Amino acid sequence: MKCRRCREPAVIDVPRHNAGFCAECFLRHCREQVRRAIEDHDMFSERDRVLVAVSGGKDSLGLWQLLRDLGYQADGLYVGLGIGEYSDTSGDYARAFAQSRGWPLLEVDLRSTYGFDVPGGSKAIKRVPCSACGLSKRHVFNDAARTNGYDVLATGHNLDDEAAVLLGNVLRWDVGYLGRQHPVLPAAPGFVRKVKPLVRLGERELAAYCVLADIDYIIEECPMAAGNRHLGYKELLNQIEERSPGTKAAFLFNFLERGHERFAGDAVEEREDLHPCPECGSPTPAEVCAFCRLQARATRSIPVTVET
Amino acid sequence: MKCRRCREPAVIDVPRHNAGFCAECFLRHCREQVRRAIEDHDMFSERDRVLVAVSGGKDSLGLWQLLRDLGYQADGLYVGLGIGEYSDTSGDYARAFAQSRGWPLLEVDLRSTYGFDVPGGSKAIKRVPCSACGLSKRHVFNDAARTNGYDVLATGHNLDDEAAVLLGNVLRWDVGYLGRQHPVLPAAPGFVRKVKPLVRLGERELAAYCVLADIDYIIEECPMAAGNRHLGYKELLNQIEERSPGTKAAFLFNFLERGHERFAGDAVEEREDLHPCPECGSPTPAEVCAFCRLQARATRSIPVTVET
Repeated sequence: MKCRRCREPAVIDVPRHNAGFCAECFLRHCREQVRRAIEDHDMFSERDRVLVAVSGGKDSLGLWQLLRDLGYQADGLYVGLGIGEYSDTSGDYARAFAQSRGWPLLEVDLRSTYGFDVPGGSKAIKRVPCSACGLSKRHVFNDAARTNGYDVLATGHNLDDEAAVLLGNVLRWDVGYLGRQHPVLPAAPGFVRKVKPLVRLGERELAAYCVLADIDYIIEECPMAAGNRHLGYKELLNQIEERSPGTKAAFLFNFLERGHERFAGDAVEEREDLHPCPECGSPTPAEVCAFCRLQARATRSIPVTVET
Repeated sequence: MKCRRCREPAVIDVPRHNAGFCAECFLRHCREQVRRAIEDHDMFSERDRVLVAVSGGKDSLGLWQLLRDLGYQADGLYVGLGIGEYSDTSGDYARAFAQSRGWPLLEVDLRSTYGFDVPGGSKAIKRVPCSACGLSKRHVFNDAARTNGYDVLATGHNLDDEAAVLLGNVLRWDVGYLGRQHPVLPAAPGFVRKVKPLVRLGERELAAYCVLADIDYIIEECPMAAGNRHLGYKELLNQIEERSPGTKAAFLFNFLERGHERFAGDAVEEREDLHPCPECGSPTPAEVCAFCRLQARATRSIPVTVET
């Protein structure tokens, strides 16, 4: 197979595009896909300060590199989730990446800043770890971006992630989630703008990108995510994709083109019901926000019964 | 496991309902689900003449029996598709079922009435057999119902069928198909009303129903359908269902409740573009309808070149 662009021997094939690429043209292809995603969805400009949430994995480190290569002002944010050895190692990868390039990396440790970690939080609210983790990350990402004056928060969700989330939302016809599923969530009172510049690149492309761009990332997946529903949806979509390459991209992009707008009103309605959490100021539809409730339960000390 | 209704020993479990049933209560459960589907979607009344498209399989024969048991005026329609031994056998089952009950069965043979069969039609239009078959059945069903003065055409699409079709439509975000996917397609000029009274019953329930109701049906699946996309989607949904019973029903019913209406306008727009086919009078958006084009290609005799 030859490179689609320069006709040199290809090192990677992308069945969805029915194309092969040499190393140099593949790196260019990845930059081009990110450039297009940012442009198509009007994510941010060179003047915006972008905070990239990095986990030490291929997607987030690849994203940070791609944004810098495209000339954006992108700094990193690493959140220590306290998931044992996995968190220690992933933090090491994020720090080594930032240091080797001299790029600023903000760090927030869930335990030392908020008094609990993901395994403890999960137990406290009797929900799967991924639920406590997602809730915590959403809060801490938004908080860190606002506190430190960033215009935009960028996450490394790729095409495979977004397609799997879409499948889950569609299987339940969760109209609020469908209305919010978009590569750009606009800023709102208490919310920084959130963007997903990797929506045009698949998981396999990101892994190849990191290898070819010489990015050292944690290969191990989070041990707490094993067997979760999201990974199950990814597997199903991979089965369809293998049979009909391009299905996953069509599923996501056709939704964005002619599905999403039909649900956007539901998300707006949900937003209109929000008010600031009395504990932390984050917008919430409930009396106290879900993160503060999680934190309260996870850090509650057992009251000592004193006999009088 | 005990029967949910009468506490006698259960003979079948329905994980989606987290329930078991004895034989008698299961038959009642099936009738009840069909009764509810007809009522919820206002499909037809006791005064309507219903034509049931029967293939000789479990779904369509089960449907005919259920409609009769519920007191409806339901006759059968068998269309000979010319799929070799499979069609011969399926016709035998349909005829034997109708004769044993003394219920009227209309018969239309594609080859003797329209001059071609499904394998020939498929070759002529260079499309998969399921495509030529679906196109032919839609035309012949509608035509037979109109010509013979029926108010409604009922087909045996079950919950598994409809969920798999929905998954295919959603993977492409085919907004016209999503707008038309409903248990009732209302009558329109040239179109008889079409209904799917089995949407609340799964494939496995239908098989059990036929066994317990002593209905002899063709177990063999159509040989031309093997490996088609629709069956692939069914398998995927079965994988999800096994992990989370009820997912399939939630997917379909939540769509009907809060998804479908968002696409209904697209289907109406498509309907407004229709005009009668000059060949057969059926409504079509094209110059000549797809069925007449299929028929023309499949029956075209090779012109003899005469030397002068």
